[in-house]
Order: sequence, then structure tokens, then C-alpha cells
Amino acid sequence: MRFTRTFPIVVSGPSGSGKTTLVEKVLDRVHLLRRSVSATTRAARPGEIEGKSYFFVGEGEFETLKTGKLIEWATVHGHAYGTPREFVEKTLDSGVDVVLSVDVQGGRQVKKAFPDAVTIFILPPSYEVLEQRIRRRAADPAGTIKTRLENAREELRALPEYEYAVVNDGFEEAVSALCSIILSERHRRARYEKEFLDKF
Amino acid sequence: MRFTRTFPIVVSGPSGSGKTTLVEKVLDRVHLLRRSVSATTRAARPGEIEGKSYFFVGEGEFETLKTGKLIEWATVHGHAYGTPREFVEKTLDSGVDVVLSVDVQGGRQVKKAFPDAVTIFILPPSYEVLEQRIRRRAADPAGTIKTRLENAREELRALPEYEYAVVNDGFEEAVSALCSIILSERHRRARYEKEFLDKF
Repeated sequence: MRFTRTFPIVVSGPSGSGKTTLVEKVLDRVHLLRRSVSATTRAARPGEIEGKSYFFVGEGEFETLKTGKLIEWATVHGHAYGTPREFVEKTLDSGVDVVLSVDVQGGRQVKKAFPDAVTIFILPPSYEVLEQRIRRRAADPAGTIKTRLENAREELRALPEYEYAVVNDGFEEAVSALCSIILSERHRRARYEKEFLDKF
Repeated sequence: MRFTRTFPIVVSGPSGSGKTTLVEKVLDRVHLLRRSVSATTRAARPGEIEGKSYFFVGEGEFETLKTGKLIEWATVHGHAYGTPREFVEKTLDSGVDVVLSVDVQGGRQVKKAFPDAVTIFILPPSYEVLEQRIRRRAADPAGTIKTRLENAREELRALPEYEYAVVNDGFEEAVSALCSIILSERHRRARYEKEFLDKF
């Protein structure tokens, strides 16, 4: 049985840290856990489902959302992405914890909106491995690689702001670590319902 | 691979919370984890092994240990029990985390000696269940039952001092929770070796 309040989980990490694949696996494995669904102005790709993959919205609608209805937003490759506050709040109210895969800027906004959020940073085994992974994405032209490396450096600088750090140097081990952090945080004394503790 | 410093884990909970059985199982399941070995003035019971079950010492030797060599000590049923600081420190230095099953007084002393210790409180499903469990121990005369109930109340009052609370209302679930807390704490950013994080 669950005796503690639900909470958001912020997962950040530089591009190339393997964050996305890790989070997918964790969502499969931990019960009562859901990924936050973002609103975006980009068009749906084949297979993507409205309200499940994303909330697909027009530019105008996104501008409206920005007036207090988003926890955080960012522009990536010319498209706007944001986290609707209502979705996160409703999911938490329904007894389900919410994972938010966001960059460090987004992470700061989530922590401001939800001070009880858990923050986890995914680290590559080393900076060298990260560099190799970014360079290996052959599709990227040289200029993009440079930008990605600079962004990675910038993201890594925010590591001291995070409560947990998971090194992705073995997939299974990293998944276990992430699952453990979520299960563990469900047993934080400060998260217990007052009514439950008062019985003692 | 492990990138974080080792740490002590304090497990407390009133008599009847099932603490001892839970900790045994956790020690079986988590690698690089050891139980702290106490020094005691009571005689060894059949099957108990010196240096593994306890360090069996005389009254005089225990008095000497009390002059700075014990993290905490207590007298139970006329026998002295204490946690030798050296054993805990050497185990931590060897790369192994140490579980200390202690009462709340002992827990406070461990936290004072090791501020980075993790503190976990084991709760029975309810006070009524705890009372039933204590009363069911048929060997106890009525007077002892009363003392045990008062002690349990007193221990429960210390719950707000603990970082985690695990409700023992299902053995497997409680064991999983305890294992998760330990694995999770091994990924706390603040516990990472500075040399490792400096590589990024």
C-alpha cells in the first residue's frame, strides 16, 4: 500500500547520456508512474497519438498556454515544447507519480512549481564517451556537433543542483538505480500523509 | 561500478515492528552491505560466533571501550551492548556500507558520529497491530508487556527525526523498500567522489 503523497520526478542529462531510453524502461517497470505529456507546435509524426505522445497545438494556442498554463517551455529546432501544469497536477492527484524528461532550465522551473520534486541527472560514463556518442550520430553536420557538445558542457554544469546522479555505464544497472530512487522516495518520511502518521 | 562514498544505515523501530527479520533479508539481498557487529557483556549463546555475532567482552573491557571507542551503547536486561567505532569505520573504508539496528537513542549517536548516515524507521501497520504483536509474545509477564508498550510509544515519538519510514505491512514489499533506499542513496549526488565528478 502507498502511504505517501505523489511527486514529480525530473530527469535531465546531456544529449548522448541515454536518458530517453532509460526513462522508457523505467516507465515499463515501475507501477503507478507516468511520463508527462508535453504540448508542442510541431506536427504529429506517423504513429504519434494526440494526448499520449504530445498535445499537438497551434502557435496561437501555445501562446495562450504560455500565460500561466505551462510549468516550463523551450524552443527546439524552431518548434515550441512545454509542460502543461494541469496534466501533471491531475496525474499526481490520481495517485500516479510523473516523470518529466527536461533540460536543466526546465528542471529548475519544475522544482520551482513543485518543491517536492525529485531531481535526477543522467551522466555518461565520461565526457569522452559522451563526445564519441554525439559525434557518432552521423546525420549531424559538423556545426550541429559543435553546438551539441557546447550544450552538453552547459548541461553538465548544472549537476550540483540535482539530488541524484546516475552514471549510464551499464543499461540494466542504470535502470535499476532509477527505479530504486523512485521507490525509495515513496518512503521518505516527509512525504507521508499526516493522517497516517497521526495514528501512531 | 560504485562512484559514491560508503555510508552507515541506521534502522530503528519499536519492538514488534519486525525490524530484525527485515534487516536479515536485506543483508542477504544487497551486495557490499554488512551488519555492524556490537560489543556486549552478555555471554555467547550456542551458535554465536565471536567477531561475527558479537564481540564478547568483560565488564572491565566494556568500560574501557566506553572511553571514546563506542559510537553508542545501551543496557538491555542488565547487559551492556555497544557499537565499536573502529569496526564501522574499517568496514566503510573497505567499500562496504554498514547497517546498524539501533534504538532511537543509538540512532541519534550514530547520526552525530556520521552525519551522512541514512536513517530509516520501521513502522508496524498500525499501533493496534504493534500492541497485538507485543501482547502475543506469551513469554512476557504483564509488567514487561506494559514496559514494552511504553517503550514502543517512546520510540515512535522519534519518527520525525528519521529520513525514511517503511511500513511493515507486507514482508516482501518492506524488504524491497529497504533495498531500494540503500541502492538509491548510493546514487545521491552529494555522495559522489569529487575526483569522479571533476572529470565532467
